[in-house]
Amino acid sequence: MTAADNAEPFAWPIRVYYEDTDAQGVVYYANYFRFMERARTEWLRALGVDQRALLNDERRIFVVTETQAAFIAPARFNDEVIVTAGLAKLGRATFDIEQNIYLGKLDGPLLLRGTVKAAFIDADTLRPKRVPASIFEENTL
Amino acid sequence: MTAADNAEPFAWPIRVYYEDTDAQGVVYYANYFRFMERARTEWLRALGVDQRALLNDERRIFVVTETQAAFIAPARFNDEVIVTAGLAKLGRATFDIEQNIYLGKLDGPLLLRGTVKAAFIDADTLRPKRVPASIFEENTL
Amino acid sequence: MTAADNAEPFAWPIRVYYEDTDAQGVVYYANYFRFMERARTEWLRALGVDQRALLNDERRIFVVTETQAAFIAPARFNDEVIVTAGLAKLGRATFDIEQNIYLGKLDGPLLLRGTVKAAFIDADTLRPKRVPASIFEENTL
Amino acid sequence: MTAADNAEPFAWPIRVYYEDTDAQGVVYYANYFRFMERARTEWLRALGVDQRALLNDERRIFVVTETQAAFIAPARFNDEVIVTAGLAKLGRATFDIEQNIYLGKLDGPLLLRGTVKAAFIDADTLRPKRVPASIFEENTL
Repeated sequence: MTAADNAEPFAWPIRVYYEDTDAQGVVYYANYFRFMERARTEWLRALGVDQRALLNDERRIFVVTETQAAFIAPARFNDEVIVTAGLAKLGRATFDIEQNIYLGKLDGPLLLRGTVKAAFIDADTLRPKRVPASIFEENTL
Repeated sequence: MTAADNAEPFAWPIRVYYEDTDAQGVVYYANYFRFMERARTEWLRALGVDQRALLNDERRIFVVTETQAAFIAPARFNDEVIVTAGLAKLGRATFDIEQNIYLGKLDGPLLLRGTVKAAFIDADTLRPKRVPASIFEENTL
Repeated sequence: MTAADNAEPFAWPIRVYYEDTDAQGVVYYANYFRFMERARTEWLRALGVDQRALLNDERRIFVVTETQAAFIAPARFNDEVIVTAGLAKLGRATFDIEQNIYLGKLDGPLLLRGTVKAAFIDADTLRPKRVPASIFEENTL
Repeated sequence: MTAADNAEPFAWPIRVYYEDTDAQGVVYYANYFRFMERARTEWLRALGVDQRALLNDERRIFVVTETQAAFIAPARFNDEVIVTAGLAKLGRATFDIEQNIYLGKLDGPLLLRGTVKAAFIDADTLRPKRVPASIFEENTL
């Protein structure tokens, strides 16, 4: 939480392919949650988290326990969208993430405003584990 | 059927296939929103709404403007889940839907608790249209 | 191969939802492979195969090693399609499956003609295992 | 670039996310066809084809009429795969594309060997249109 208030959030560009769209001509609503997860994965990677090693070696995984999204404007085939991820609140076994999606660039039109509550759990017992605070220490918010 | 308080909600069974799961061994979180949309589609069909005729003939479509979900317990490969859909609130151009997902049967373990705000819009202009109240008149809540 | 020549193949109905379609207004080509796998899963279930028990207890799984499909005509939102599955050839560690997709009913328009080569393997070592011939003995072709 | 025999094919890197995998711990077989289409889309873009303008302005689209794939080895969560696309044969209204998928880099392990037959059609009548040969003239094979 040492980052400056005006720090840019983590942002990940995603191209919209036919697979993402539906017969209404726009991105299918559930697929925005895929986009959000890609950005979270890359954000965690940028923070030094190796999710595969966590899964295979330590048997610990991140899971989404709650999410919400407001769909403000649609993305279409061939658009590039920018998906952000930023820590909103760090709890003991969960953390809240804010994620927005913009069209084309970070100061482009806002398409989606979302939040995700994630938990860090044991992959076998599904019991909560303490989120390593070091992940987020110098990086976000 | 008039909307007795103890009326059962509309419920739609869905089988979990490999396509729905991920390497964590459970249903991928975004795919529950697909399940919810299948149940909504079948619920609207049961209410007499022909979405294809609406799209092709009247150029009017239902779109999701907001959604939220709490993921309480996971579904796994080969599970059958029951997805409900029920009208929570009818506005002028939008309506709120409550959707839960249960494992195996309507009184089975609750896996997901969700809400969806849907709008009825013109497919070409994307402008809101009045939701035909007759759809829901004798049926739900 | 004791089944009569004129036996109907295993057939599984699938409804097309928005999630299956793309901005071209038809089912996205990769999603037909999902439909085919749903039909194979239900076909194996009908033959008495419990894929989850195989995975969890015996650590043996079916995997697709080759597939091909000819896309003859498209399915659209809200269509019901019928997906068939039938054994074409049983090898030691693999078997060939023929799968067609029809619009609306088994003697409806042919939408897709496909084949799948599946192998039965050890889930941990990925090494081939002999396909239990008893599965198919009295049932198909 | 003229089509020297030893020219490298068009290659597109794709990261494997949880959404791409299934409960067997590997990429779900149908999703490789999504990867292949992303690479084809980027290959066409690199060749100067604007698919969105084609769809919206000229109402012409590329569709897959046949595909086949041999699944040689699986990709897993967090892998990066390289998907190639190259013209194998140019017909009047169709063209054949060869696509391979490699793990990590172009000379990494081969995961998938595939072919796609694509047609260029009128989006409204679905009737075949002559493939603009200029697209491929100086570029590939």
